[in-house]
Amino acid sequence: MTRALVVLSGGQDSTTCLYWALHRFGAGQVEALSFDYGQRHRIELDCARTIAARAAVPYAVLPINTFAALGGNALTDPGIAVQGAAENSTALPNTFVPGRNLIFLTFAAAYAYPRGIRHLVTGVAQTDYSGYPDCRQGTISALEQAISLGMDCDFTLHTPLMHKSKADTVRMARELGALEALADSHTCYHGQRPPCGSCPACVLRARGFAEAGIADPLLERFRADPP
Amino acid sequence: MTRALVVLSGGQDSTTCLYWALHRFGAGQVEALSFDYGQRHRIELDCARTIAARAAVPYAVLPINTFAALGGNALTDPGIAVQGAAENSTALPNTFVPGRNLIFLTFAAAYAYPRGIRHLVTGVAQTDYSGYPDCRQGTISALEQAISLGMDCDFTLHTPLMHKSKADTVRMARELGALEALADSHTCYHGQRPPCGSCPACVLRARGFAEAGIADPLLERFRADPP
Repeated sequence: MTRALVVLSGGQDSTTCLYWALHRFGAGQVEALSFDYGQRHRIELDCARTIAARAAVPYAVLPINTFAALGGNALTDPGIAVQGAAENSTALPNTFVPGRNLIFLTFAAAYAYPRGIRHLVTGVAQTDYSGYPDCRQGTISALEQAISLGMDCDFTLHTPLMHKSKADTVRMARELGALEALADSHTCYHGQRPPCGSCPACVLRARGFAEAGIADPLLERFRADPP
Repeated sequence: MTRALVVLSGGQDSTTCLYWALHRFGAGQVEALSFDYGQRHRIELDCARTIAARAAVPYAVLPINTFAALGGNALTDPGIAVQGAAENSTALPNTFVPGRNLIFLTFAAAYAYPRGIRHLVTGVAQTDYSGYPDCRQGTISALEQAISLGMDCDFTLHTPLMHKSKADTVRMARELGALEALADSHTCYHGQRPPCGSCPACVLRARGFAEAGIADPLLERFRADPP
Protein backbone atom coordinates (compact mmCIF):
# COMPACT_ATOMS: atom_id res chain seq x y z
CA MET A 1 0.00 0.00 0.00
CA THR A 2 1.11 3.53 -0.72
CA ARG A 3 1.22 5.82 2.25
CA ALA A 4 1.01 9.59 2.38
CA LEU A 5 1.73 12.43 4.78
CA VAL A 6 -0.48 15.52 4.74
CA VAL A 7 0.91 18.86 5.92
CA LEU A 8 -2.01 20.01 8.05
CA SER A 9 -2.21 23.64 9.09
CA GLY A 10 -5.71 23.47 10.51
CA GLY A 11 -6.99 25.67 7.68
CA GLN A 12 -9.65 25.04 5.10
CA ASP A 13 -7.31 23.98 2.30
CA SER A 14 -5.12 21.50 4.17
CA THR A 15 -8.24 20.00 5.80
CA THR A 16 -9.70 19.42 2.35
CA CYS A 17 -6.36 17.89 1.30
CA LEU A 18 -6.48 15.49 4.23
CA TYR A 19 -9.79 14.13 2.95
CA TRP A 20 -8.43 14.08 -0.60
CA ALA A 21 -5.54 11.93 0.66
CA LEU A 22 -7.87 9.58 2.54
CA HIS A 23 -9.83 9.15 -0.69
CA ARG A 24 -6.72 8.73 -2.85
CA PHE A 25 -4.54 6.56 -0.61
CA GLY A 26 -7.15 4.92 1.61
CA ALA A 27 -8.00 4.97 5.31
CA GLY A 28 -5.11 3.68 7.35
CA GLN A 29 -2.54 4.89 4.83
CA VAL A 30 -2.55 8.58 5.72
CA GLU A 31 -0.77 10.54 8.44
CA ALA A 32 -0.87 14.25 9.23
CA LEU A 33 1.84 16.62 10.41
CA SER A 34 1.63 20.19 11.71
CA PHE A 35 4.35 22.67 12.53
CA ASP A 36 4.47 24.74 15.66
CA TYR A 37 6.49 27.61 14.22
CA GLY A 38 5.41 30.37 16.56
CA GLN A 39 2.24 31.22 14.68
CA ARG A 40 0.39 34.01 16.43
CA HIS A 41 -2.79 32.01 16.61
CA ARG A 42 -2.31 28.84 18.58
CA ILE A 43 -5.89 28.00 17.72
CA GLU A 44 -4.62 26.74 14.34
CA LEU A 45 -2.83 23.86 16.04
CA ASP A 46 -5.88 23.07 18.18
CA CYS A 47 -7.95 22.94 15.01
CA ALA A 48 -5.43 20.70 13.24
CA ARG A 49 -5.42 18.26 16.16
CA THR A 50 -9.22 18.16 16.25
CA ILE A 51 -9.39 17.62 12.49
CA ALA A 52 -6.82 14.80 12.56
CA ALA A 53 -8.66 13.13 15.43
CA ARG A 54 -11.99 13.36 13.58
CA ALA A 55 -10.37 11.81 10.49
CA ALA A 56 -8.71 9.18 12.72
CA VAL A 57 -5.23 9.67 11.26
CA PRO A 58 -1.94 9.55 13.19
CA TYR A 59 -0.94 13.13 13.95
CA ALA A 60 2.29 14.78 15.02
CA VAL A 61 3.48 18.34 15.61
CA LEU A 62 7.06 19.35 14.88
CA PRO A 63 8.48 22.50 16.45
CA ILE A 64 10.32 25.08 14.33
CA ASN A 65 11.77 27.94 16.37
CA THR A 66 13.69 29.43 13.44
CA PHE A 67 11.03 31.63 11.84
CA ALA A 68 10.43 33.53 15.07
CA ALA A 69 14.21 34.03 15.37
CA LEU A 70 14.29 35.37 11.81
CA GLY A 71 11.50 37.78 12.73
CA GLY A 72 10.16 40.56 10.59
CA ASN A 73 6.85 39.14 9.39
CA ALA A 74 3.28 39.47 10.53
CA LEU A 75 2.62 35.74 10.92
CA THR A 76 4.96 35.20 13.83
CA ASP A 77 5.72 38.72 15.07
CA PRO A 78 2.95 40.11 17.30
CA GLY A 79 4.36 43.61 16.83
CA ILE A 80 3.51 43.65 13.12
CA ALA A 81 -0.07 44.14 11.92
CA VAL A 82 -1.32 41.92 9.10
CA GLN A 83 -1.55 43.76 5.78
CA GLY A 84 -2.71 42.49 2.45
CA ALA A 85 -0.61 42.87 -0.68
CA ALA A 86 -2.70 45.82 -1.80
CA GLU A 87 -2.30 47.65 1.49
CA ASN A 88 1.45 48.01 1.62
CA SER A 89 4.06 49.28 -0.75
CA THR A 90 5.92 46.06 -1.47
CA ALA A 91 4.89 43.43 -3.97
CA LEU A 92 4.29 40.78 -1.32
CA PRO A 93 2.02 40.94 1.74
CA ASN A 94 3.78 41.26 5.08
CA THR A 95 2.51 37.81 6.04
CA PHE A 96 5.08 36.44 3.58
CA VAL A 97 7.64 34.34 5.42
CA PRO A 98 10.46 33.71 2.94
CA GLY A 99 10.76 30.00 2.28
CA ARG A 100 8.03 28.91 4.64
CA ASN A 101 6.54 26.23 2.41
CA LEU A 102 10.00 25.09 1.29
CA ILE A 103 10.88 24.51 4.93
CA PHE A 104 7.56 22.86 5.82
CA LEU A 105 7.77 20.41 2.93
CA THR A 106 11.45 19.62 3.51
CA PHE A 107 10.84 18.90 7.18
CA ALA A 108 7.76 16.88 6.19
CA ALA A 109 10.02 14.81 3.92
CA ALA A 110 12.55 14.41 6.75
CA TYR A 111 9.71 13.18 8.97
CA ALA A 112 8.38 10.87 6.24
CA TYR A 113 11.79 9.49 5.26
CA PRO A 114 12.43 7.04 8.13
CA ARG A 115 8.75 6.02 8.08
CA GLY A 116 8.99 4.88 4.47
CA ILE A 117 6.43 7.48 3.35
CA ARG A 118 7.25 8.98 -0.04
CA HIS A 119 4.06 10.92 -0.85
CA LEU A 120 3.55 14.37 0.64
CA VAL A 121 0.34 16.34 0.29
CA THR A 122 0.10 20.11 0.65
CA GLY A 123 -2.82 22.49 0.26
CA VAL A 124 -0.90 25.26 -1.52
CA ALA A 125 -2.73 26.86 -4.42
CA GLN A 126 -1.33 28.99 -7.20
CA THR A 127 -4.62 30.87 -7.17
CA ASP A 128 -3.89 31.93 -3.59
CA TYR A 129 -4.95 35.56 -3.42
CA SER A 130 -1.82 36.52 -1.53
CA GLY A 131 0.42 35.55 -4.42
CA TYR A 132 2.99 33.77 -2.27
CA PRO A 133 5.66 32.56 -4.72
CA ASP A 134 6.30 29.41 -2.71
CA CYS A 135 2.74 28.28 -3.44
CA ARG A 136 3.29 28.05 -7.20
CA GLN A 137 3.56 24.78 -9.08
CA GLY A 138 7.01 25.67 -10.43
CA THR A 139 8.36 26.09 -6.90
CA ILE A 140 6.80 22.84 -5.72
CA SER A 141 8.16 20.91 -8.73
CA ALA A 142 11.68 22.27 -8.18
CA LEU A 143 11.44 21.43 -4.50
CA GLU A 144 10.20 17.92 -5.27
CA GLN A 145 13.38 17.41 -7.26
CA ALA A 146 15.62 18.96 -4.61
CA ILE A 147 14.12 16.79 -1.87
CA SER A 148 14.26 13.63 -3.99
CA LEU A 149 17.90 14.24 -4.91
CA GLY A 150 18.83 15.41 -1.41
CA MET A 151 17.36 12.31 0.27
CA ASP A 152 18.22 9.94 -2.56
CA CYS A 153 14.70 8.57 -3.04
CA ASP A 154 11.70 9.58 -5.11
CA PHE A 155 9.30 11.81 -3.27
CA THR A 156 6.05 12.95 -4.87
CA LEU A 157 4.60 16.27 -3.74
CA HIS A 158 0.85 16.32 -4.31
CA THR A 159 -0.92 19.66 -4.66
CA PRO A 160 -4.57 18.75 -5.25
CA LEU A 161 -5.74 22.36 -4.93
CA MET A 162 -3.02 23.99 -7.02
CA HIS A 163 -5.23 25.30 -9.82
CA LYS A 164 -8.57 25.39 -8.04
CA SER A 165 -10.55 28.47 -7.14
CA LYS A 166 -11.80 28.72 -3.57
CA ALA A 167 -15.28 27.83 -4.84
CA ASP A 168 -13.91 24.71 -6.54
CA THR A 169 -12.14 23.76 -3.31
CA VAL A 170 -15.40 24.09 -1.40
CA ARG A 171 -17.20 21.89 -3.95
CA MET A 172 -14.38 19.37 -3.73
CA ALA A 173 -14.69 19.31 0.07
CA ARG A 174 -18.37 18.49 -0.27
CA GLU A 175 -17.66 15.67 -2.72
CA LEU A 176 -15.03 14.24 -0.38
CA GLY A 177 -17.31 14.39 2.66
CA ALA A 178 -15.05 16.97 4.28
CA LEU A 179 -17.65 19.67 4.90
CA GLU A 180 -18.28 18.74 8.52
CA ALA A 181 -14.55 18.76 9.19
CA LEU A 182 -14.37 22.30 7.82
CA ALA A 183 -16.41 23.42 10.82
CA ASP A 184 -13.25 22.70 12.82
CA SER A 185 -10.92 24.48 10.41
CA HIS A 186 -9.44 27.88 11.08
CA THR A 187 -9.07 30.70 8.56
CA CYS A 188 -9.34 34.09 10.31
CA TYR A 189 -6.10 36.11 10.24
CA HIS A 190 -7.16 37.74 13.49
CA GLY A 191 -7.31 34.37 15.24
CA GLN A 192 -10.97 34.76 16.14
CA ARG A 193 -13.45 31.93 16.54
CA PRO A 194 -16.15 32.61 15.50
CA PRO A 195 -14.23 34.30 12.69
CA CYS A 196 -14.08 38.09 12.44
CA GLY A 197 -15.61 37.98 8.96
CA SER A 198 -13.76 41.05 7.77
CA CYS A 199 -10.06 40.14 7.43
CA PRO A 200 -8.83 39.20 3.92
CA ALA A 201 -8.77 35.49 4.81
CA CYS A 202 -12.34 35.51 6.15
CA VAL A 203 -13.56 37.47 3.13
CA LEU A 204 -11.90 35.03 0.73
CA ARG A 205 -13.35 32.02 2.54
CA ALA A 206 -16.84 33.53 2.57
CA ARG A 207 -16.61 34.33 -1.16
CA GLY A 208 -15.61 30.74 -1.94
CA PHE A 209 -18.56 29.26 -0.08
CA ALA A 210 -20.92 31.84 -1.59
CA GLU A 211 -19.74 31.12 -5.13
CA ALA A 212 -20.11 27.39 -4.54
CA GLY A 213 -23.60 27.96 -3.15
CA ILE A 214 -22.75 26.04 0.00
CA ALA A 215 -23.17 27.24 3.59
CA ASP A 216 -19.92 27.40 5.57
CA PRO A 217 -20.29 24.77 8.32
CA LEU A 218 -18.05 26.86 10.55
CA LEU A 219 -20.52 29.76 10.46
CA GLU A 220 -23.45 27.36 10.69
CA ARG A 221 -22.05 25.92 13.87
CA PHE A 222 -21.77 29.28 15.59
CA ARG A 223 -25.16 30.31 14.22
CA ALA A 224 -26.71 27.19 15.77
CA ASP A 225 -24.71 27.46 18.97
CA PRO A 226 -23.51 31.00 19.66
CA PRO A 227 -20.49 31.16 22.02
CA MET B 1 28.71 45.69 -4.66
CA THR B 2 27.63 42.06 -4.52
CA ARG B 3 27.20 40.63 -1.08
CA ALA B 4 27.35 37.02 0.06
CA LEU B 5 26.35 34.91 3.04
CA VAL B 6 28.52 31.95 4.04
CA VAL B 7 26.97 29.03 5.90
CA LEU B 8 29.65 28.51 8.54
CA SER B 9 29.69 25.27 10.52
CA GLY B 10 33.02 25.86 12.18
CA GLY B 11 34.54 23.01 10.19
CA GLN B 12 37.48 22.99 7.81
CA ASP B 13 35.43 23.23 4.60
CA SER B 14 33.11 26.09 5.52
CA THR B 15 36.05 28.00 7.00
CA THR B 16 37.86 27.69 3.69
CA CYS B 17 34.67 28.83 1.95
CA LEU B 18 34.54 31.93 4.14
CA TYR B 19 37.97 32.94 2.88
CA TRP B 20 36.97 32.04 -0.67
CA ALA B 21 34.00 34.41 -0.32
CA LEU B 22 36.17 37.20 1.10
CA HIS B 23 38.44 36.79 -1.90
CA ARG B 24 35.58 36.56 -4.41
CA PHE B 25 33.21 39.24 -3.05
CA GLY B 26 35.61 41.45 -1.10
CA ALA B 27 36.07 42.35 2.55
CA GLY B 28 33.02 44.11 3.89
CA GLN B 29 30.69 42.25 1.52
CA VAL B 30 30.56 38.94 3.36
CA GLU B 31 28.51 37.74 6.31
CA ALA B 32 28.48 34.37 8.06
CA LEU B 33 25.64 32.34 9.54
CA SER B 34 25.66 29.27 11.74
CA PHE B 35 22.85 27.03 12.90
CA ASP B 36 22.37 25.87 16.43
CA TYR B 37 20.47 22.69 15.62
CA GLY B 38 21.27 20.66 18.69
CA GLN B 39 24.60 19.37 17.42
CA ARG B 40 26.21 17.16 20.04
CA HIS B 41 29.39 19.18 20.01
CA ARG B 42 28.77 22.77 21.01
CA ILE B 43 32.43 23.39 20.31
CA GLU B 44 31.52 23.70 16.61
CA LEU B 45 29.61 26.91 17.31
CA ASP B 46 32.43 28.27 19.45
CA CYS B 47 34.82 27.59 16.58
CA ALA B 48 32.52 29.25 14.04
CA ARG B 49 32.25 32.37 16.20
CA THR B 50 36.02 32.55 16.64
CA ILE B 51 36.59 32.08 12.91
CA ALA B 52 34.06 34.77 11.98
CA ALA B 53 35.62 37.17 14.48
CA ARG B 54 39.12 36.52 13.11
CA ALA B 55 37.84 37.17 9.57
CA ALA B 56 36.00 40.27 10.84
CA VAL B 57 32.67 39.37 9.23
CA PRO B 58 29.21 39.95 10.73
CA TYR B 59 28.09 36.70 12.29
CA ALA B 60 24.75 35.34 13.43
CA VAL B 61 23.45 32.05 14.80
CA LEU B 62 19.95 30.83 14.01
CA PRO B 63 18.33 28.16 16.20
CA ILE B 64 16.68 25.10 14.66
CA ASN B 65 15.00 22.86 17.22
CA THR B 66 13.36 20.63 14.61
CA PHE B 67 16.14 18.12 13.93
CA ALA B 68 16.38 17.14 17.58
CA ALA B 69 12.59 16.71 17.61
CA LEU B 70 12.85 14.47 14.54
CA GLY B 71 15.47 12.41 16.36
CA GLY B 72 16.98 9.16 15.19
CA ASN B 73 20.40 10.28 14.00
CA ALA B 74 23.84 10.32 15.55
CA LEU B 75 24.52 14.02 14.99
CA THR B 76 21.89 15.28 17.41
CA ASP B 77 20.96 12.20 19.44
CA PRO B 78 23.46 11.50 22.23
CA GLY B 79 22.06 7.97 22.57
CA ILE B 80 23.28 6.97 19.11
CA ALA B 81 26.95 6.25 18.45
CA VAL B 82 28.53 7.64 15.30
CA GLN B 83 29.04 5.00 12.61
CA GLY B 84 30.53 5.34 9.17
CA ALA B 85 28.72 4.10 6.09
CA ALA B 86 30.88 1.01 6.01
CA GLU B 87 30.15 0.13 9.62
CA ASN B 88 26.41 -0.23 9.46
CA SER B 89 24.01 -2.11 7.29
CA THR B 90 22.29 0.80 5.56
CA ALA B 91 23.61 2.66 2.55
CA LEU B 92 24.02 5.94 4.43
CA PRO B 93 25.99 6.60 7.62
CA ASN B 94 23.88 7.16 10.72
CA THR B 95 25.09 10.76 10.88
CA PHE B 96 22.81 11.39 7.87
CA VAL B 97 20.10 13.87 8.82
CA PRO B 98 17.56 13.79 5.98
CA GLY B 99 17.38 17.18 4.35
CA ARG B 100 19.88 18.89 6.60
CA ASN B 101 21.63 20.91 3.90
CA LEU B 102 18.32 21.66 2.19
CA ILE B 103 17.08 23.18 5.43
CA PHE B 104 20.31 25.04 6.18
CA LEU B 105 20.43 26.66 2.74
CA THR B 106 16.72 27.51 2.71
CA PHE B 107 16.97 29.18 6.11
CA ALA B 108 20.15 30.91 4.94
CA ALA B 109 18.17 32.28 2.01
CA ALA B 110 15.38 33.37 4.34
CA TYR B 111 17.99 35.20 6.45
CA ALA B 112 19.62 36.72 3.36
CA TYR B 113 16.34 37.75 1.70
CA PRO B 114 15.45 40.85 3.74
CA ARG B 115 19.13 41.86 3.79
CA GLY B 116 19.28 42.01 0.01
CA ILE B 117 21.90 39.25 -0.12
CA ARG B 118 21.41 36.89 -3.05
CA HIS B 119 24.63 34.85 -3.00
CA LEU B 120 24.94 31.93 -0.61
CA VAL B 121 28.15 29.99 -0.10
CA THR B 122 28.30 26.45 1.26
CA GLY B 123 31.19 24.09 1.80
CA VAL B 124 29.43 20.93 0.63
CA ALA B 125 31.52 18.64 -1.54
CA GLN B 126 30.38 15.83 -3.77
CA THR B 127 33.62 14.07 -2.92
CA ASP B 128 32.53 13.97 0.72
CA TYR B 129 33.52 10.54 1.94
CA SER B 130 30.19 10.06 3.71
CA GLY B 131 28.28 10.19 0.45
CA TYR B 132 25.52 12.46 1.77
CA PRO B 133 23.15 12.94 -1.18
CA ASP B 134 22.33 16.50 -0.13
CA CYS B 135 25.98 17.45 -0.77
CA ARG B 136 25.80 16.68 -4.49
CA GLN B 137 25.76 19.33 -7.20
CA GLY B 138 22.46 18.07 -8.60
CA THR B 139 20.75 18.57 -5.26
CA ILE B 140 22.23 22.04 -4.83
CA SER B 141 21.21 23.09 -8.35
CA ALA B 142 17.64 21.88 -7.82
CA LEU B 143 17.51 23.66 -4.49
CA GLU B 144 18.87 26.87 -6.02
CA GLN B 145 15.93 26.79 -8.40
CA ALA B 146 13.40 25.96 -5.66
CA ILE B 147 14.65 28.80 -3.45
CA SER B 148 14.76 31.28 -6.33
CA LEU B 149 11.23 30.41 -7.42
CA GLY B 150 9.94 30.19 -3.85
CA MET B 151 11.26 33.63 -2.92
CA ASP B 152 10.73 35.15 -6.34
CA CYS B 153 14.29 36.40 -6.81
CA ASP B 154 17.48 34.93 -8.21
CA PHE B 155 19.66 33.29 -5.63
CA THR B 156 23.03 31.82 -6.52
CA LEU B 157 24.31 28.94 -4.42
CA HIS B 158 28.09 28.79 -4.58
CA THR B 159 29.84 25.50 -3.85
CA PRO B 160 33.54 26.26 -4.29
CA LEU B 161 34.62 22.88 -2.91
CA MET B 162 32.10 20.72 -4.77
CA HIS B 163 34.56 18.77 -6.89
CA LYS B 164 37.72 19.19 -4.84
CA SER B 165 39.54 16.48 -2.96
CA LYS B 166 40.42 17.19 0.66
CA ALA B 167 44.02 17.76 -0.44
CA ASP B 168 42.86 20.30 -3.04
CA THR B 169 40.80 22.04 -0.37
CA VAL B 170 43.85 22.26 1.89
CA ARG B 171 45.92 23.75 -0.96
CA MET B 172 43.12 26.19 -1.68
CA ALA B 173 43.04 27.24 1.97
CA ARG B 174 46.77 28.00 1.80
CA GLU B 175 46.34 30.07 -1.36
CA LEU B 176 43.50 32.02 0.25
CA GLY B 177 45.47 32.70 3.43
CA ALA B 178 43.03 30.61 5.44
CA LEU B 179 45.51 28.20 7.00
CA GLU B 180 45.80 30.05 10.29
CA ALA B 181 42.02 30.17 10.56
CA LEU B 182 41.92 26.39 10.16
CA ALA B 183 43.64 26.12 13.54
CA ASP B 184 40.31 27.31 14.95
CA SER B 185 38.20 24.93 12.89
CA HIS B 186 36.61 21.80 14.28
CA THR B 187 36.46 18.42 12.56
CA CYS B 188 36.50 15.61 15.15
CA TYR B 189 33.26 13.61 15.29
CA HIS B 190 33.96 12.91 18.94
CA GLY B 191 33.98 16.60 19.76
CA GLN B 192 37.53 16.50 21.10
CA ARG B 193 39.98 19.36 20.97
CA PRO B 194 42.79 18.48 20.40
CA PRO B 195 41.12 16.10 17.98
CA CYS B 196 40.94 12.36 18.71
CA GLY B 197 42.82 11.59 15.51
CA SER B 198 41.06 8.28 15.00
CA CYS B 199 37.43 9.03 14.05
CA PRO B 200 36.57 9.00 10.30
CA ALA B 201 36.47 12.81 10.19
CA CYS B 202 39.88 13.19 11.83
CA VAL B 203 41.37 10.53 9.57
CA LEU B 204 40.00 12.23 6.46
CA ARG B 205 41.30 15.62 7.57
CA ALA B 206 44.76 14.20 8.32
CA ARG B 207 44.87 12.47 4.94
CA GLY B 208 44.01 15.72 3.14
CA PHE B 209 46.79 17.67 4.84
CA ALA B 210 49.24 14.81 4.30
CA GLU B 211 48.44 14.55 0.59
CA ALA B 212 48.79 18.32 0.22
CA GLY B 213 52.12 18.18 2.03
CA ILE B 214 51.00 20.84 4.49
CA ALA B 215 51.02 20.64 8.28
CA ASP B 216 47.60 20.96 9.90
CA PRO B 217 47.72 24.21 11.89
CA LEU B 218 45.24 22.74 14.36
CA LEU B 219 47.65 19.95 15.26
CA GLU B 220 50.59 22.37 15.14
CA ARG B 221 48.91 24.58 17.70
CA PHE B 222 48.40 21.78 20.18
CA ARG B 223 51.90 20.45 19.49
CA ALA B 224 53.35 23.87 20.31
CA ASP B 225 51.04 24.42 23.25
CA PRO B 226 49.71 21.16 24.72
CA PRO B 227 46.47 21.56 26.71
